[in-house]
Amino acid sequence: MSDRDAVLFANEAFYAAFNGRDFAAMEMLWSRSMPISCIHPGGGPVFDREAVMAGWRSILGHVSSAQIQCHAPHVRMFGEHAVVVCFEEIAGNMLIASNVFMREDRAWRMVHHQAGPTAETPPRVALSDKGPIRFN
Amino acid sequence: MSDRDAVLFANEAFYAAFNGRDFAAMEMLWSRSMPISCIHPGGGPVFDREAVMAGWRSILGHVSSAQIQCHAPHVRMFGEHAVVVCFEEIAGNMLIASNVFMREDRAWRMVHHQAGPTAETPPRVALSDKGPIRFN
Repeated sequence: MSDRDAVLFANEAFYAAFNGRDFAAMEMLWSRSMPISCIHPGGGPVFDREAVMAGWRSILGHVSSAQIQCHAPHVRMFGEHAVVVCFEEIAGNMLIASNVFMREDRAWRMVHHQAGPTAETPPRVALSDKGPIRFN
Repeated sequence: MSDRDAVLFANEAFYAAFNGRDFAAMEMLWSRSMPISCIHPGGGPVFDREAVMAGWRSILGHVSSAQIQCHAPHVRMFGEHAVVVCFEEIAGNMLIASNVFMREDRAWRMVHHQAGPTAETPPRVALSDKGPIRFN
């Protein structure tokens, strides 16, 4: 698996952990050795593992919360570091997110997340006779 | 100057370029060798140097635009990479931003920026008889 695919996989695992209300998976996804930070939509900054995890524990404790669909993830690789920009569709609202990952041991771990509202929508996927073409 | 101070300096230079409507300085601030991306408040993702710079050229061309005051910048260092989280006060509105920097040659260059609305306000600075104390 290429680094780019491994980062995309980690990004998907983040949304799977959210949608599955899987706090253990969410905890595993985030770096343990690096200083982490998180900005939820409309919120302020949350710094460091204890506070970031307390936030996720609270959010994931609401089993009735909406699911997030991640659209059009776009990976920027910087060696041991990567930024994924993607759309988040949640309860009919569109958000845009920056997900920052670092390589830790042999895995890509999240070190920063910001999501906020966007007036834009993800690029459409068109069907042609050669199969799906993604415009981005 | 420590790496942390150099990153804070680059972060300040970003807001100085904005407030001075200084496109040349803005262009200099962003990486030339890395894949850059930018998410303006409420907007969609903008990828790669040409598009990101076209966006800044347009924004900085509006000389009457409001000034941004950067509050409470918080630097997270990851070796050759850094994330600065800070509040942006603009025309009475409060935003929160993630500014991602990479070391390029001997300078810290921006590779990603996202700003979006926040309902929170920066930590207050209190005056005591020992001078200012920053609560963050």
